[in-house]
Amino acid sequence: MGPFAMGIDVGRTNVRAGLVDRRGQVVQFLEEAVPPVGQQNPLAETLVRTCREVLHRGGVKLADLVTVGCATVGHVDPDSGVIVASPLQGWTGIDLRTPLSQSFQRTVTVEGEGNAAALAAYFFGPSRDRSPLLSMVVGSGIDCGFIEDGRLLRGAKNSALEAGHMRLFHPGRTCVCGRTGCFEAHAGGYALASLLAEYRAAGHELPARPEEVAELAQASHETCISIWEEQGVLLGLGVAILLDILNPAMVVLSGGILRSWNLFKKSLLKTARDKAMPRNAEVAIVCAPDPERACLLGAVVAALRAEKRYDFFLDAQAETG
Amino acid sequence: MGPFAMGIDVGRTNVRAGLVDRRGQVVQFLEEAVPPVGQQNPLAETLVRTCREVLHRGGVKLADLVTVGCATVGHVDPDSGVIVASPLQGWTGIDLRTPLSQSFQRTVTVEGEGNAAALAAYFFGPSRDRSPLLSMVVGSGIDCGFIEDGRLLRGAKNSALEAGHMRLFHPGRTCVCGRTGCFEAHAGGYALASLLAEYRAAGHELPARPEEVAELAQASHETCISIWEEQGVLLGLGVAILLDILNPAMVVLSGGILRSWNLFKKSLLKTARDKAMPRNAEVAIVCAPDPERACLLGAVVAALRAEKRYDFFLDAQAETG
Repeated sequence: MGPFAMGIDVGRTNVRAGLVDRRGQVVQFLEEAVPPVGQQNPLAETLVRTCREVLHRGGVKLADLVTVGCATVGHVDPDSGVIVASPLQGWTGIDLRTPLSQSFQRTVTVEGEGNAAALAAYFFGPSRDRSPLLSMVVGSGIDCGFIEDGRLLRGAKNSALEAGHMRLFHPGRTCVCGRTGCFEAHAGGYALASLLAEYRAAGHELPARPEEVAELAQASHETCISIWEEQGVLLGLGVAILLDILNPAMVVLSGGILRSWNLFKKSLLKTARDKAMPRNAEVAIVCAPDPERACLLGAVVAALRAEKRYDFFLDAQAETG
Repeated sequence: MGPFAMGIDVGRTNVRAGLVDRRGQVVQFLEEAVPPVGQQNPLAETLVRTCREVLHRGGVKLADLVTVGCATVGHVDPDSGVIVASPLQGWTGIDLRTPLSQSFQRTVTVEGEGNAAALAAYFFGPSRDRSPLLSMVVGSGIDCGFIEDGRLLRGAKNSALEAGHMRLFHPGRTCVCGRTGCFEAHAGGYALASLLAEYRAAGHELPARPEEVAELAQASHETCISIWEEQGVLLGLGVAILLDILNPAMVVLSGGILRSWNLFKKSLLKTARDKAMPRNAEVAIVCAPDPERACLLGAVVAALRAEKRYDFFLDAQAETG
């Protein structure tokens, strides 16, 4: 038993917590719905409660907990652990670090989801050759991260890789952020749900949730198949822009939408390769090994890096820095 | 007298060579047309001849020449000094380094135009605080470079910042690279010339060259004013995408099109700030101090960095590393 690191992933609709052992395995895992967010910081309370439950179920004592890493959607300041900007109502100003560090008496490292997923892919594979890597987390929205020479590209305000809100179309669809034509207004979970609502309003007999459309597509429902193929095209257009600007050797996709990877892989790959410059299109585009836990695992890598605990993982190749 | 560094800038239509002294001043400068490119490497011959003439006019002996730096359009391999890919016919495979190093018996450093302009802005100002910087060279086409923590973002194949060929519109206008909707198919010198050809074909009484349209716009010709304002909007759309992906603290524009900066500055700034995420839109967007010599000066910085000649510039603040 032990030691363990706690990994947390705060998504728009769900929070996930997991205990990671020295082999890099998630040995305990829990997922809970995000509570309505308001003044009382119920989000942080949910995180603390979920982590306590994970420790309890794993029979792990606090003394065996090395560190806590938390990945989150929204724009987070890694120094303070506070969400400093988010298009989601009520999220701006939420302090994720203090409640967690007070509860568990550990240093808590907070990192953006896109960055966390990049760290997971860079240090646990599939990109173990350390070449420039782009991660794209496609859940309700789209978050990205980029690593070159072991360094995250952060930008002036730690706000680089805001690719979910780059302009893909002019004017395009209305986004959760209030503007139009954003990448994630066209691709990802929210975009797909909006599209389905429009189809249904127009009289099409389609389910309301992307997961249900995926089930029908897997069962050869033609409209549902084409809806997912079109998602691949739209995601591919965004990936192509990122290939031309960042020139990664590998793109690693993760997030809940990747459950349906087989439904949109082909159209995404074709679009990305057709639309990027030929040299920049020579790139591996793959699904993360465990796409729904990539952010959680990356949060642990971020925490171990921050504390220079390069000895934590038993596998020397899974070095953290 | 001396020592001096030779800076070269290979554009699509013109090559420029200049002698740079220890104060960072261009003390001799020559510009020549790019010859038709073919098997005999007339481009490299033109470079050698132009550099010799610059040395001659400056009365500078070869012994006083410290190093040679060459910035170029196209995709260059900095290790070999060869243009390894270019949308321009006949440019792929041109060796820029060997003829120059044989003629001048100096190490020759070859760098992409966008990277060179970024180095110039980063080390000579306006971005002397060393915060993340995006350079955009708008000449016939568009080349970009990005520096964070003193490091150029290069990507897997030294092919990052190919922003001139990222997809701005779907499908959009046909580009020199054969694809459609590229940023530089809509903005910059070639794009503007194509637009003017279309206007003229449709019977509008307009001059053929962007410079002439700029002259008329400066003299209050309404159609010409609006053509340049629209250029600002189109450039701003591309800048906004780069702001969201890279989050620079400063954007420095250079290149021949910047001669008309006053005609498109306002619409570019407004568009970039409206279209990028609010946090990422908080950025200084400025014209380089000497926009047509930024690449040449940056080529010298690249050469001095490559040779670790950090003592060359007298001004300690203009450090090269």
